[in-house]
Amino acid sequence: MSFLENLNWRYATKKFDSTKKVSDENLQKIRDAIRMAPTSFGVQMFSVIEVVDTEIRNKIKDVAWKQSQITDSDRVFVFLSRNDGEARIDKMFAEMSGGNEEVRKNSLKEYEDMVRSSVLRHDPKDLLNWSAKQAYLALGFALAAAAELNVDSCPMEGFDATKVKEILGLGDEFMPVVMLPVGYRDETDEYLKKSKFRFPESEILIKK
Amino acid sequence: MSFLENLNWRYATKKFDSTKKVSDENLQKIRDAIRMAPTSFGVQMFSVIEVVDTEIRNKIKDVAWKQSQITDSDRVFVFLSRNDGEARIDKMFAEMSGGNEEVRKNSLKEYEDMVRSSVLRHDPKDLLNWSAKQAYLALGFALAAAAELNVDSCPMEGFDATKVKEILGLGDEFMPVVMLPVGYRDETDEYLKKSKFRFPESEILIKK
Repeated sequence: MSFLENLNWRYATKKFDSTKKVSDENLQKIRDAIRMAPTSFGVQMFSVIEVVDTEIRNKIKDVAWKQSQITDSDRVFVFLSRNDGEARIDKMFAEMSGGNEEVRKNSLKEYEDMVRSSVLRHDPKDLLNWSAKQAYLALGFALAAAAELNVDSCPMEGFDATKVKEILGLGDEFMPVVMLPVGYRDETDEYLKKSKFRFPESEILIKK
Repeated sequence: MSFLENLNWRYATKKFDSTKKVSDENLQKIRDAIRMAPTSFGVQMFSVIEVVDTEIRNKIKDVAWKQSQITDSDRVFVFLSRNDGEARIDKMFAEMSGGNEEVRKNSLKEYEDMVRSSVLRHDPKDLLNWSAKQAYLALGFALAAAAELNVDSCPMEGFDATKVKEILGLGDEFMPVVMLPVGYRDETDEYLKKSKFRFPESEILIKK
């Protein structure tokens, strides 16, 4: 199994086979890839809701152009940006110090101050944008993991984020930014026959 | 070789061994992963500058907290967001139709109109933010590729983007958003001894 060997195997799956389920083992590998994705200062300023519930998925589909991937896939990972920088950094350093305030004050203070000043200089809207970028990097890891495991997926931006937030009952510190249904392709998916478009390398990459 | 097996092997390399070079074959695999990363509507609204030149790297280092990864790595991939949506979409559909205006008008028009209206509804600043997210997904693919190949890397946001833009002689349609030095770790890197911090899964992922 190799991510690089599956770069062309993977595609944005439009039609999932709703009878096929992803194994617990493979799901756990995708979750691990998301959790282990690097983030700026290691703050992991994003969260993911893994939606299996049919009723919730039906509601999301209604505010996402009725795209069938949402209900025909095995489940949907909804990536959220966060704007609760202060609380998140607090929790991070509490975790890092194992809840030991002495350790936190003595050996982590310099790092904590640096993280605090770097992250909290963003205003709330900028913080959501910055956090969204961290979420997209983690989405890249989820996509790479799925590809390596021959699990199909389809990154989706086409939904009403505010309504998805309501459906998921999320607080104001969260905003859905992108969704990733995972499962297995229906072999009759017409998008399977289409050739993948990518710009030639010269349009993407310049060497200096 | 497997991306998933190397999730814990990889780390944000702070000290590179400047005598070690990445093979052409492995560099090409990293470039391919970047180019094959999925993007919204397939527009690939981002670019990457691959910087090898020592003089340029020294200048970038000066506006990036003098971080040694920039000059000690084998090379640096600089990811750029783009705000030239109209031109990019034009080029995309010219490429897709193989320069055949008839094909473009007859079989691609509906798709082109949809892409145009979706992408160009962003104002210029929003377009840069949206494009940056696509670049971060591609950064995730570059990191996954490097990890699979046992190539070290270090994603970096800590630099003066406007100055890096000047140093690279970029037009106003571009903005550097994140850099990725690649190469091989120096085994004396003190960060190798530190344990990797990640939140427990319950702090990242909620199931519904």
